[in-house]
Amino acid sequence: MPWQMARRAERLNPSTIREILKITERPGIVSLAGGLPSADTFPVAAMKEATARVLRDSPREALQYAASEGYAPLREWVAAELGTQGLHAAAAQVIITSGSQQGLDLVGKVLIDPGSTVAVESPTYLGALQAFAPYEPEFVAVQGDAEGPLPQALDAARGARFLYLLPNYQNPTGRCMSAARRLALVARARQLGLPIVEDNPYGELWFDAPPPPPLSAVAGDGAVYLGSFSKVLAPGLRLGYVVAPERLYPKLLQAKQAADLHTAGFNQRVVYEVIRNGFLRQHVPTIRARYRAQRDAMRAALEQHLPPGCHWQAPVGGMFFWVELPAHIDATALLPRAVEAGVAYVPGSTFYPHGGHANTLRLSFVTVPPGTIHTAVAALARVLAAA
Amino acid sequence: MPWQMARRAERLNPSTIREILKITERPGIVSLAGGLPSADTFPVAAMKEATARVLRDSPREALQYAASEGYAPLREWVAAELGTQGLHAAAAQVIITSGSQQGLDLVGKVLIDPGSTVAVESPTYLGALQAFAPYEPEFVAVQGDAEGPLPQALDAARGARFLYLLPNYQNPTGRCMSAARRLALVARARQLGLPIVEDNPYGELWFDAPPPPPLSAVAGDGAVYLGSFSKVLAPGLRLGYVVAPERLYPKLLQAKQAADLHTAGFNQRVVYEVIRNGFLRQHVPTIRARYRAQRDAMRAALEQHLPPGCHWQAPVGGMFFWVELPAHIDATALLPRAVEAGVAYVPGSTFYPHGGHANTLRLSFVTVPPGTIHTAVAALARVLAAA
Repeated sequence: MPWQMARRAERLNPSTIREILKITERPGIVSLAGGLPSADTFPVAAMKEATARVLRDSPREALQYAASEGYAPLREWVAAELGTQGLHAAAAQVIITSGSQQGLDLVGKVLIDPGSTVAVESPTYLGALQAFAPYEPEFVAVQGDAEGPLPQALDAARGARFLYLLPNYQNPTGRCMSAARRLALVARARQLGLPIVEDNPYGELWFDAPPPPPLSAVAGDGAVYLGSFSKVLAPGLRLGYVVAPERLYPKLLQAKQAADLHTAGFNQRVVYEVIRNGFLRQHVPTIRARYRAQRDAMRAALEQHLPPGCHWQAPVGGMFFWVELPAHIDATALLPRAVEAGVAYVPGSTFYPHGGHANTLRLSFVTVPPGTIHTAVAALARVLAAA
Repeated sequence: MPWQMARRAERLNPSTIREILKITERPGIVSLAGGLPSADTFPVAAMKEATARVLRDSPREALQYAASEGYAPLREWVAAELGTQGLHAAAAQVIITSGSQQGLDLVGKVLIDPGSTVAVESPTYLGALQAFAPYEPEFVAVQGDAEGPLPQALDAARGARFLYLLPNYQNPTGRCMSAARRLALVARARQLGLPIVEDNPYGELWFDAPPPPPLSAVAGDGAVYLGSFSKVLAPGLRLGYVVAPERLYPKLLQAKQAADLHTAGFNQRVVYEVIRNGFLRQHVPTIRARYRAQRDAMRAALEQHLPPGCHWQAPVGGMFFWVELPAHIDATALLPRAVEAGVAYVPGSTFYPHGGHANTLRLSFVTVPPGTIHTAVAALARVLAAA
């Protein structure tokens, strides 16, 4: 049968990371490639209690069709929680999504026309590029430094439908934008009439001090904010949220309804039962402490083992180290040798909207215990030294 | 901030049904408008057991990121189950989706270009029109009779990207396609090179005999099949599936990954635990018996109360009666008076891709007990008689 694909289907492609993750499922490989949180942090006991309570107290509501915007108490919780971080939004601005990945898809669906421009950090989150790509934008890479994208570099984004930013412990670089940089970016974006899409899955995973307030806290109706429960509770529940200005909200909501009617009400009620009484105030610090120790282990291992000419900065939160190798090393070409040596990583090139930057790679430190981190980094270092 | 919307956002609109459902939440209104299954059919005890078991035996896997195609044992269950219905597919052809609504969105994303043609029954499922619309197709209505669309009417669909069909107890008409009609449609579609998208949320809800085998059973690689757990277990879990031919599968899977990474693994494992040992063989007959009794109640009420000039056929499965009123009655205009009289329905016009057919309406019989069905239909009949 001659199925004719839509033109946008050409922009759908297999994820490099998925292919790598398949390799790393082989026994004996230590994967520093994943973007998964540690399963040791999943609040299983709290989940058991919450699911039992929801199925006892409100099974008919939890298992029935529900509102596209999400479960009202959970939307109120999100609004209140963001208020404590300086982002003052009404519950009426919140849509609960099937993971924050779905927020990216909905934003793309509502805002991107074929050939329109979307401005992104370079490198940026691969999943965002994948969510936006089928809507056929041209990506513009905004140059930056260790503090984030450069305000003067936003001129290249003039006329873009939006600027996509991941300010906290960015995937893949681990970079956290400074407070001053956030303010400068918002000011420049406003001058340019450039809307901001702010994605914050990792903000709660700070190690020493919380990150500065979200850009959305000062951007007013110039920003959409995306959040997630994947890194503070568990990704297998697929719960995230979008906070949208009034002008955008109805279209995002209609797009949500068209996409899957609503996010599973059962999951929303269970998560609300877990978190309603301040559970995250006790729980998230345990994740921070665990990840901080593993960050320390990876920093020590990198310092001890990596050959000269490799550069990295220890992240102050999140899940990733970003390593720049000597210019002549191609991390993609080197990956099979690393896998032979028992260690996997993600080549950095995949995170750049226009490729290149072959001499970069991403390492996750959250799913592997400190001792194994040392062994794996030592193995990686031997492969790098041989190259 | 000057958010510029994508052109496709113009095709996103508030659902008429949603607006009606808001009205019907007022106390004292009996709603025959909903498309909800009866909450009395939700298998709460089985859900309790299954959630406890999943959180005891595999919490780390259930709460972690998972494969975009879905949980392997559930995909195998789907393939085996469809085999018993005559549709022989491999588990490798199955993608688990966030409700079958998401299957419609993914199909639209991968197959519809702006200005391309999509052929639909007339009337058809509103949610499908809403899922497809943002991809900017032109809808072609295929004419039909009581047995389904007419094979010779498919000539109007020549060149369409696909023909969308809901063969079993269609929403909104309740119509079930005859076996002969299915074969004739598949044969004609094959001649025309016209792919079929077959949507089957209601097929298990038969009252006296199962429906004929799916069109996909004979259409080979010429059909995509969409199924759902919403009507046999519970919609609040948001679990559906797509069965796709080899040529389409990779693009649908990549679209799924871009849209929300994967469907909640927790939900997939819980549902698999519920159904793995044949639970539905006992459970679904109880739903059938309940809905059959309520169908009988509504048929009796319509026969007793509705004024002359109204036409309907009692459905042999599913959830809906479809009523044609005398030509001069506008069901949309009449709705406020019906609501005043304490009863709500969905005006039929909303289900037609090009509107019109103002003298039709849809009644659901599954969420309201038989006595109340009688009262509500009597009230509706008085409003109709007055018109």
